Amino acid sequence: MSLDTHATKPHEALAAHLAPAMDAVNHLIRLRMASKHAPRIPEVTAHLVEAGGKRLRPMLTLAAAELCGGSGENAVKLAATVEFIHTATLLHDDVVDESHQRRGRPTANLLWDNKSSVLVGDYLFSRSFQLMVETGSLRVLDILANASATIAEGEVLQLTAAQNLATTEDIYLQVVRGKTAALFSAATEVGGVIAGAPEAQVKALFDYGDALGIAFQIADDLLDYQGDSSSTGKNVGDDFREGKLTLPVIKAVAQATKEERQFWARVIEKRNQNEGDLEQALELFEKYGTLSATRDEALIWSDKAKASMASLPDHPIRDMLTGLADYVVARLR
Amino acid sequence: MSLDTHATKPHEALAAHLAPAMDAVNHLIRLRMASKHAPRIPEVTAHLVEAGGKRLRPMLTLAAAELCGGSGENAVKLAATVEFIHTATLLHDDVVDESHQRRGRPTANLLWDNKSSVLVGDYLFSRSFQLMVETGSLRVLDILANASATIAEGEVLQLTAAQNLATTEDIYLQVVRGKTAALFSAATEVGGVIAGAPEAQVKALFDYGDALGIAFQIADDLLDYQGDSSSTGKNVGDDFREGKLTLPVIKAVAQATKEERQFWARVIEKRNQNEGDLEQALELFEKYGTLSATRDEALIWSDKAKASMASLPDHPIRDMLTGLADYVVARLR
Repeated sequence: MSLDTHATKPHEALAAHLAPAMDAVNHLIRLRMASKHAPRIPEVTAHLVEAGGKRLRPMLTLAAAELCGGSGENAVKLAATVEFIHTATLLHDDVVDESHQRRGRPTANLLWDNKSSVLVGDYLFSRSFQLMVETGSLRVLDILANASATIAEGEVLQLTAAQNLATTEDIYLQVVRGKTAALFSAATEVGGVIAGAPEAQVKALFDYGDALGIAFQIADDLLDYQGDSSSTGKNVGDDFREGKLTLPVIKAVAQATKEERQFWARVIEKRNQNEGDLEQALELFEKYGTLSATRDEALIWSDKAKASMASLPDHPIRDMLTGLADYVVARLR
Repeated sequence: MSLDTHATKPHEALAAHLAPAMDAVNHLIRLRMASKHAPRIPEVTAHLVEAGGKRLRPMLTLAAAELCGGSGENAVKLAATVEFIHTATLLHDDVVDESHQRRGRPTANLLWDNKSSVLVGDYLFSRSFQLMVETGSLRVLDILANASATIAEGEVLQLTAAQNLATTEDIYLQVVRGKTAALFSAATEVGGVIAGAPEAQVKALFDYGDALGIAFQIADDLLDYQGDSSSTGKNVGDDFREGKLTLPVIKAVAQATKEERQFWARVIEKRNQNEGDLEQALELFEKYGTLSATRDEALIWSDKAKASMASLPDHPIRDMLTGLADYVVARLR
């Protein structure tokens, strides 16, 4: 694992480099989240959009476009598009997960209600759809339509498979692509397409986003068991308490004795948990080395992301994207 | 009000005329609602799609396309598109309205859960998006993106305005456009566009769908107070019990005495309802003639729909569409 050696973090370097374009993206987001008739829409959206997310996805679109020699109005529109899609999925996710906190603040479904989160999510998805149509690129529309289907399918899959001990690492990967990687890869791919990049570069940008997203999500799932809540905004063991079958658990289940399997069936499938169960799970992770095996997988995907940069032009942005692939796994131990 | 004098109802005549194309639409719907990985998706969708809805929206698209001399694969794709959008909105509506019955059967949110309805709705919306992209028509994408935004905005508006006595007839009309007319008008408009119809005909098709949708929704809101549940599948006064500010109530509130206004504030805004309140509301409707005034509005929109047919080609389908505009208000008394 290589550590980030720059003074600033890679996403901060990207943010600094892309600041003027990101200002345009933020302006467009505020403009398009407005609703003449239904003030509830910008209220709910602003709560989430202005909560200080990193705006990683729109930055990926702008970075990909600039890296391939094209930026401008359409790149800004697509950056706003992916942020709208992201925000819409967060609103729906919080309803589905019955979450009460997001980015350290109460969720919209808690502050308003589930109804508002469902409908405002639908509205933002429609707004993203209008924005991408404005670019006039059928290729971009095709990419984002497919990404949307992968996202929605992954969410349903997570709902039905996530508490089933038979869930394999393959299914986990599909869920991760839906949850995270599909929008990352669409974000970088449409950046390349709108810049008119050659096919090989567009493919490399897709691969980068896909691998980065997977590394990011595996790292996130791992940190749920080893992070500290001050840096992640989540409490250790949240996924465990919600009965989520993430990679460390899947790997432990695969090697479990009959007795251990009964433990996992009780705490994950039945979500019948007692004091000490989290500690027991951590011991089983230790016994089979599943946390470090999970970390190794995150590193493999991070390396894949970096390798895909090889066919892209030599450019400061390429270095920042490489640094970002290191950074998402640098938090892991 | 002209009554339907044909032996078959207009939507049945349309269904018979369009049967081969509708078979293709139904085949495409079943094909595209599948999910390799998440069987929950086709389960939930089939429950709704196969519950015997009239498929009015896809028929409107096919009818508009054929009327303008163009049918074929893209018209079938767009017909499936509008049915998917419709089904997605029904799934989300039932979550938002906490409904337990739809088309005489338990709702998906009751049979499965709200989560499944939210996510499967998202999936169907994504699938509709993929289908429309396949037609390769940016004009079609623009129309459906705008319709989606109008639908979502109307739903939020209904959520926030529907229980506010200050709601005007203008706002009611915006809600109705979002709930019903936006998808009707998009369905007919994209039919004309995909058939390569001249602008004047495309405009006429939009106007027809818009007026038909408004007439349909006003009639639906009126029947809530005077229909019998065996034909509408709803119980008389459902909207009243849910505190919905539909046209008969808005018209009664506009003319209310101070005392009557207090009654409306209690039963609609506060939803604090007692035995006899529905009867009291019906008496106030009678006092101000708001049910017949509402019926008159439905007839005006039905006439507008028929008038917009004037610039379209003389064709059996045109007669069926005219008959349909009569039919949606023929149920009213």
